[in-house]
Amino acid sequence: MVNTLQERLARSAATVDTSAGRLADIQRWFHARTEADTSRVEIIPFEELRGWSFAADTHNLVHETGRFFSVEGLRVRMPGGAVERWTQPILHQPEIGILGILVKDFDGVPHFLMQAKMEPGNHGGLQLSPTVQATRSNYTRVHRGRPVPYVEYFQRMDRHRVLADVRQSEQGTWFFRKRNRNMLVEVAADEDIEVRDGFRWLTLGQLHHLLAVEDLVNMDARSALACLPASYDGGPPGAGGSVHRTADILSWVTGLRTDREVETERIPLRETDRWHRTGHRISHESGRYFSVMAVDVRAGGREVRGWTQPMIEPHGPGVAAFLLAHADGVPHVLVQARAEPGYTDVVELAPTVQCTPRNYTHLPGAAMPRFLDEVVHAPADRVRFDTVLSEEGGRFYHAFNRYLVVDSAMDVVAPDDPDFRWMALHQLLDLIRHSHYVNVEARTLIACLHSLLVK
Amino acid sequence: MVNTLQERLARSAATVDTSAGRLADIQRWFHARTEADTSRVEIIPFEELRGWSFAADTHNLVHETGRFFSVEGLRVRMPGGAVERWTQPILHQPEIGILGILVKDFDGVPHFLMQAKMEPGNHGGLQLSPTVQATRSNYTRVHRGRPVPYVEYFQRMDRHRVLADVRQSEQGTWFFRKRNRNMLVEVAADEDIEVRDGFRWLTLGQLHHLLAVEDLVNMDARSALACLPASYDGGPPGAGGSVHRTADILSWVTGLRTDREVETERIPLRETDRWHRTGHRISHESGRYFSVMAVDVRAGGREVRGWTQPMIEPHGPGVAAFLLAHADGVPHVLVQARAEPGYTDVVELAPTVQCTPRNYTHLPGAAMPRFLDEVVHAPADRVRFDTVLSEEGGRFYHAFNRYLVVDSAMDVVAPDDPDFRWMALHQLLDLIRHSHYVNVEARTLIACLHSLLVK
Repeated sequence: MVNTLQERLARSAATVDTSAGRLADIQRWFHARTEADTSRVEIIPFEELRGWSFAADTHNLVHETGRFFSVEGLRVRMPGGAVERWTQPILHQPEIGILGILVKDFDGVPHFLMQAKMEPGNHGGLQLSPTVQATRSNYTRVHRGRPVPYVEYFQRMDRHRVLADVRQSEQGTWFFRKRNRNMLVEVAADEDIEVRDGFRWLTLGQLHHLLAVEDLVNMDARSALACLPASYDGGPPGAGGSVHRTADILSWVTGLRTDREVETERIPLRETDRWHRTGHRISHESGRYFSVMAVDVRAGGREVRGWTQPMIEPHGPGVAAFLLAHADGVPHVLVQARAEPGYTDVVELAPTVQCTPRNYTHLPGAAMPRFLDEVVHAPADRVRFDTVLSEEGGRFYHAFNRYLVVDSAMDVVAPDDPDFRWMALHQLLDLIRHSHYVNVEARTLIACLHSLLVK
Repeated sequence: MVNTLQERLARSAATVDTSAGRLADIQRWFHARTEADTSRVEIIPFEELRGWSFAADTHNLVHETGRFFSVEGLRVRMPGGAVERWTQPILHQPEIGILGILVKDFDGVPHFLMQAKMEPGNHGGLQLSPTVQATRSNYTRVHRGRPVPYVEYFQRMDRHRVLADVRQSEQGTWFFRKRNRNMLVEVAADEDIEVRDGFRWLTLGQLHHLLAVEDLVNMDARSALACLPASYDGGPPGAGGSVHRTADILSWVTGLRTDREVETERIPLRETDRWHRTGHRISHESGRYFSVMAVDVRAGGREVRGWTQPMIEPHGPGVAAFLLAHADGVPHVLVQARAEPGYTDVVELAPTVQCTPRNYTHLPGAAMPRFLDEVVHAPADRVRFDTVLSEEGGRFYHAFNRYLVVDSAMDVVAPDDPDFRWMALHQLLDLIRHSHYVNVEARTLIACLHSLLVK
């Protein structure tokens, strides 16, 4: 067959200037949207939150409707971790939202409908977002806002072609078992789709260029793009060898999920230990980790004109990096099996390095994350990708991670290391079709890897 | 490659008489073991349980060590179900046990090391079981019994070849989020394995014959055999078409898991409503569903010589059946997306029909399970498999299901039915490598299907 999905995606990845818009046009458009954005975000004391309050008994921070999300407490026991027991505030958001990207062929080249969207936690205001990025409260209109554009394409899919539809986890240190439904839905080339204000069709080639720009492509877009179901890097289709058999990778994950005794218990926020609340912040007495705070948002182009909400503000930027090496020409990344207290299923596959370095400075040297040094001190000619990107701006205030891909060699780790395995990219893409395998930071890096590996 | 796993399994499936033993020898051996088995099981009142008691506050039935399992209460809300709200007793067993089968080539034919094992719930005493069938309490020897033979092969696998290693769910109506680790581990053909008393090497062909014998191959063996990673039915390797794309099947499952609002809450057994305890039984006032009861076991060849334990005794046998049809020569079964309160992830893929018919006799006719009539009244020439088999004899007392495979046609269901999809067998085998997709009754039927489809 001439037009496999893999080949079509490869064509989109190779296309930077199209009839629908050249890269420079996209950049100008995005810049103009940013200039025109009149929204502003202001940090406020908790008492100025509207509709949100601390519950009298638990001190949980909750919305008067009982929906959206809440800030609660979590008690964690993680034997073998750098810290083995702690309590912390955590976001609880049981609803499963939609992160959906609409895909359509123009002149035989798949394009992705993206939105320039303001989120209160974004540093620069607007970021490039999926077609639909909505909690269930959003699209069922609990907040009485305007309807979510394009959401109908992700609710009635029988007339369209589903490329991916999978619940994926998000940050397990800040969210308790949060999942969003990551969706890519292709409409027929002759389907007439109105391009609404703030939206634009982009090729994968354009998206790859923009991924290398700081703070531009948002987390939800990166996560959904990572779920594209096929390698399109020009390597051999399908097959492709791997250092470890997939059965052995799965057995490694099964073993860790069986043996690691991670215990978590939701507790009242009042019962978190060493976390203290002032008028503006809930923070750890050490000053490390993160704070819970509140913002007032005046929006330009959002569903509702203004609102207030609590957010999480991390203390200090993070680092997330994959070491990359090739075996018989097949790209492999070194994945870490990582336990985070908010994960649904004990461990997920994470970047080689994923940490906030300043959270470790008070711990003994042995507790420093493995490979951190190799990543941050890599010679320039081995750094294949190095861009600061933001995490979800709807919940996290100025949450930055420096994402890196660094050339390395297979022998940096023993084949039977308890916590690390070299995995072929195609093996990761097989697992990303299923929930709870590939964590959100690894998904960002997979989106970035595609931008590097395309021939 | 001449000796793919698929080809080797096909050879094993085609081999009924080998140098290690002819089928008739195996049958004689099993019969002799059964004759020689001196164990006996007696129903006792709860007060004669040793080490088990009802907790003063919750009335939960618990072991004095806090281990093994407990009988607790569960409150369920399942909108859209035949019954929407109820409470019930449920088994809580958070430990993940091992169901492991050792595999080894003899003269180029893979053999499976099986055990003739007594379990108290078995009707006939002994059943054919995996090499290792052990809770963590068993193999860490909480009960101070003898060590579990062969367990070391499933704990240190680096010298062996893992064919499958996946946590699979068990009965979601009787267990709360119970998972066991289903493992198939192949040792080198020249590895010397002592065959201990009560164990025997069998080919797949022999196992297929024995699957059609009532009550002989136990649930754990069927579940592990279903996890064999390759089709070996002589059909076209790999590929094979399917009526629905796998992406659409996964999207259907994701949609159901997102939208179905199943809520469960563990409650004290004391708070279950309409369930009453006598000296011998905890039963529903209607007489339906199941009872909790207790047994005293005197064992012949078990790790410990005698013990008492609570069990679940179902009221009335169940029916579990797949409708089978072919599309372009590829075998498909009609799977049902089924919610059970004890499932870890909302719904799993289940047989076309799975029910205990007598639980429905009091409900309006519309509540009768779909396709039940088609299955139990199928003309004989369409019934491809029809055998009564037992569920786990370590927890369930005389729990029988009649397992059927019935020839049908694609058009018995609409392609977009909310609850049913035709799936190619190879699609199910792709999903069975991951947890929480294929339920335990469907796994039994997959093991049986293999016995039918082998050429």
